[in-house]
Amino acid sequence: MNRKQLIEEIKSKQSFLCVGLDTDITKIPKHLLSLDNPILEFNKQIIDATKDFCVAYKPNIAFYECLGSRGWDILQETLAYIPDNIFTIADAKRGDIGNTASMYAKTFLEKYQFDSVTVAPYMGNDSVKPFLAIPNKWTILLGLTSNEGALDFQFIEDKSGLKVYEHVLNTSKSWGTVENLMYVIGATKAEYFQKVRAIIPNHFLLVPGVGAQGGNLQDVCKQGINSDCGLLINSSRGILYASQDEDFAEVVAMKAKEIQREMSLILKQYQIIS
Amino acid sequence: MNRKQLIEEIKSKQSFLCVGLDTDITKIPKHLLSLDNPILEFNKQIIDATKDFCVAYKPNIAFYECLGSRGWDILQETLAYIPDNIFTIADAKRGDIGNTASMYAKTFLEKYQFDSVTVAPYMGNDSVKPFLAIPNKWTILLGLTSNEGALDFQFIEDKSGLKVYEHVLNTSKSWGTVENLMYVIGATKAEYFQKVRAIIPNHFLLVPGVGAQGGNLQDVCKQGINSDCGLLINSSRGILYASQDEDFAEVVAMKAKEIQREMSLILKQYQIIS
Repeated sequence: MNRKQLIEEIKSKQSFLCVGLDTDITKIPKHLLSLDNPILEFNKQIIDATKDFCVAYKPNIAFYECLGSRGWDILQETLAYIPDNIFTIADAKRGDIGNTASMYAKTFLEKYQFDSVTVAPYMGNDSVKPFLAIPNKWTILLGLTSNEGALDFQFIEDKSGLKVYEHVLNTSKSWGTVENLMYVIGATKAEYFQKVRAIIPNHFLLVPGVGAQGGNLQDVCKQGINSDCGLLINSSRGILYASQDEDFAEVVAMKAKEIQREMSLILKQYQIIS
Repeated sequence: MNRKQLIEEIKSKQSFLCVGLDTDITKIPKHLLSLDNPILEFNKQIIDATKDFCVAYKPNIAFYECLGSRGWDILQETLAYIPDNIFTIADAKRGDIGNTASMYAKTFLEKYQFDSVTVAPYMGNDSVKPFLAIPNKWTILLGLTSNEGALDFQFIEDKSGLKVYEHVLNTSKSWGTVENLMYVIGATKAEYFQKVRAIIPNHFLLVPGVGAQGGNLQDVCKQGINSDCGLLINSSRGILYASQDEDFAEVVAMKAKEIQREMSLILKQYQIIS
């Protein structure tokens, strides 16, 4: 999916919600456990319940990898079930030297046919470019993360007061374009969105941490939204585990619809839709 | 495998060689391609050929992940074939928030029973500690990498002249101990080993980049070795693809033995063995 198509989906669905498929067998409703493939069944019901209210799905690869080879089959079947008009993100946070990065890029963007993959910046240029080299796909680079540990290294300041995460944005923005590069920017730090937008006004930002991790949607949009929306706001646990009952999918749909309505108002407020 | 056992293996084999199992089907000898499982067969022959000359194996997870679910089965069968007295490293460079990091840690250190896993530092404290929390296992944190892109962010200097990679070592060394934490330190920057050893004199260092990436064994040891050796030097492509002939395993064994002999002399030179 290219940038134009993504923006059209956002306007058409009046939503910039990404649903994180961090499916944990210990947290899904108990009545599913008697089925042959409870995780796949759960994912399918989540997709059915939310596909009208979101524009992206983000499977967290750790949750599939931990199941061994079977997990990768479940991941593939989950992807096959996602409608074509919904953007897909492999949340893998990979990062390695060139020939290895190229393997990871091919795995997620070609073999599994994700639209995008999250990548870690620590190893620099040649660890990121192999992802950007895959045509018609997206790289989503970690900029500022939403966890407590973000403070350890992302906020180290150089002599001129520029922080490491700002260096990452400044340096990497020329590696790709707004058509193939997005950034992960954590929502628990809404006050930093202004600094981020000063460096990358037009890039799409994938924003985790709204909901379970404590970020606030209105605060994020105030500084982070741009004229194309430019935001994908992720919610994982807040949507997936909204109910443990047999009718959990209805509760999940209501929860997603509620967020979509809030997003619709925001898109109108910022005159992105009329 | 604990630190004491690892040091005993190094002394007994007179080697601190780690063989990187970056097995690429396009690079293995052609006569293997007619077999049912060429990658597993290649790995077994490499292990048979090198097990007397090395103390560690490091499968690069990208090379298995790219094969889909079958790749994970090959990885598991490869691990089962590695003798118990050899240290195993999952070169995965994972890094994510706490609950996800915990999934990755369990996958590599419990499910696949690796002795250790490589981890990226960008997300800080809570992305690393779940790995360190698994008892009797090792976390190998990226410090200074051997690739060109290392210059992009690892060398940003703070006001006092301290570089980001030095911050990573300084801050993270208290998260674990010399009994459960090692660091990746790239060998193409032998001149930095002195700085690294000033911060972490006693930790084991996993050193990629000797051979194909251009590092020199003697230079690395001059600054990097300590009284327990404290080094695992990795070679992947230089050993694996030493020959394309049917008798490739003999050439691989000779190559590994050659490195082991050089390491034996170094261990004697620094009086680690007599």
